[in-house]
Amino acid sequence: MTYCVGIKLDAGLVFLSDSRTNAGLDAISTFRKMMVYEKPSDRFMVLLSAGNLSISQSVREILQVEKLDNGPDEPPLTIWNAKSMFDAVRVLGSAVRRVYDQDGPSLRAAGIDFNASMIFGGQIAGEAMRLFLVYSAGNFIEATRETCFFQVGESKYGKPVLDRMITPHTPLDEAAKCALVSMDSTLKSNLSVGLPLDLLVYEADRLQSDQMVCIDEHNPYFHMIRNTWGQKLRQVFESIEDPHWESGGTTAYPLVVRSGRFEPMRKITNASEKMI
Amino acid sequence: MTYCVGIKLDAGLVFLSDSRTNAGLDAISTFRKMMVYEKPSDRFMVLLSAGNLSISQSVREILQVEKLDNGPDEPPLTIWNAKSMFDAVRVLGSAVRRVYDQDGPSLRAAGIDFNASMIFGGQIAGEAMRLFLVYSAGNFIEATRETCFFQVGESKYGKPVLDRMITPHTPLDEAAKCALVSMDSTLKSNLSVGLPLDLLVYEADRLQSDQMVCIDEHNPYFHMIRNTWGQKLRQVFESIEDPHWESGGTTAYPLVVRSGRFEPMRKITNASEKMI
Repeated sequence: MTYCVGIKLDAGLVFLSDSRTNAGLDAISTFRKMMVYEKPSDRFMVLLSAGNLSISQSVREILQVEKLDNGPDEPPLTIWNAKSMFDAVRVLGSAVRRVYDQDGPSLRAAGIDFNASMIFGGQIAGEAMRLFLVYSAGNFIEATRETCFFQVGESKYGKPVLDRMITPHTPLDEAAKCALVSMDSTLKSNLSVGLPLDLLVYEADRLQSDQMVCIDEHNPYFHMIRNTWGQKLRQVFESIEDPHWESGGTTAYPLVVRSGRFEPMRKITNASEKMI
Repeated sequence: MTYCVGIKLDAGLVFLSDSRTNAGLDAISTFRKMMVYEKPSDRFMVLLSAGNLSISQSVREILQVEKLDNGPDEPPLTIWNAKSMFDAVRVLGSAVRRVYDQDGPSLRAAGIDFNASMIFGGQIAGEAMRLFLVYSAGNFIEATRETCFFQVGESKYGKPVLDRMITPHTPLDEAAKCALVSMDSTLKSNLSVGLPLDLLVYEADRLQSDQMVCIDEHNPYFHMIRNTWGQKLRQVFESIEDPHWESGGTTAYPLVVRSGRFEPMRKITNASEKMI
């Protein structure tokens, strides 16, 4: 399994991926899932991939050389000459479809889904930053101000903290911290997501980044997050009042209110099935 | 969708379920998913169900009258005469299989999975409390001290907080609070899980419970949880140091360590694909 997250903020982009791959319980390996495509001062693009490893590796290989017909008077489109991130992600979609054409029928014959999903984002000189989620069919959607992050792979465990913390105004470092907390929750609940992690932070309009790090189990910052988050979460949890079943007591927040508009609890007293 | 959780503690059992059912975006309704089977002083059992509503409603109906052959010299086994929770859950498994026999072929012909999963727990006089997870095939597993809670339905969003907080020693009220926090995270991340909630807390060896409540959007306690948890989570989040990209600075927890055993970041400088 995999967990990757890409976040688009006013201040820039944040990408985080794990590196656990498993093809059955006996075949668990480490494969990095983050690729960077950079032409300094011209374009900076990042690809995160989840799904069948053979598919995503093929897509990455092909993406390097993929050419998309761009009309009779234009040279073919590649990720290196695309004038917009929209065109670049179309090239990626085309690479996904090329792999589908090559491998799809054999995979289907073997009863294996053509399963790949990718986060692709970055900036090309002259255009704003953009972030896309690319599906197995090569189609894609773009992040907006309302939905400013995408996740692929084992995404649910880590979604609540992103939902609560991330807005387009979130500063870059805070968003990186949030992505790491989200990853920590995922690592804790799912064994098939694993270290090391790749973290990359891109500042808007720089067209390069020197904020990339591979985080292993010895990384002091991630180590601190893992310890502190769980511990503080427990403190917060303990600081919240336990429910009080008796109404009319001392609590301001009764769980059961016997009068007024709140539905009281119903006691089951006979030996039959009742829906409470 | 649905989210239900059942927790087995030394002190008792906690059950929580939502009530959202959807059969397509236009057909979203409220159906309670918690059933209580009680014979005072003799047995107290709770069933939570997720999956296809027609299946789980049929199972609940049939469970009332289901009889399992119990050998030539014994009367047939029902949930009302079972001497152990293990026998009671076998009756439930048999009810699931009966619904499968009735509806499975037609569902399959319509391309619909026979999808149902249930949490069933409680206590029968003379035996300890037990908690089971029942699958669509009528087979089941039992909670242990190592794995003391089960979830069915949309379970992932709410799992991290349970993983962090629940042990067999957790007091009942604290576990009820944790279940509500877990539900809050699920409600926040998935629209297809919805209020009202049914919460039931069973104290070990009482063979009855008067701690059952239906929680709607006006419930003061759940309202407090929803506000406080998100807000305090944000405070904790903000209290954790943001990552520092510069090493050798003032932080005790550098994100990037340039020397020693930690792998330094690698900068991509040429115009080609590199895995960081």
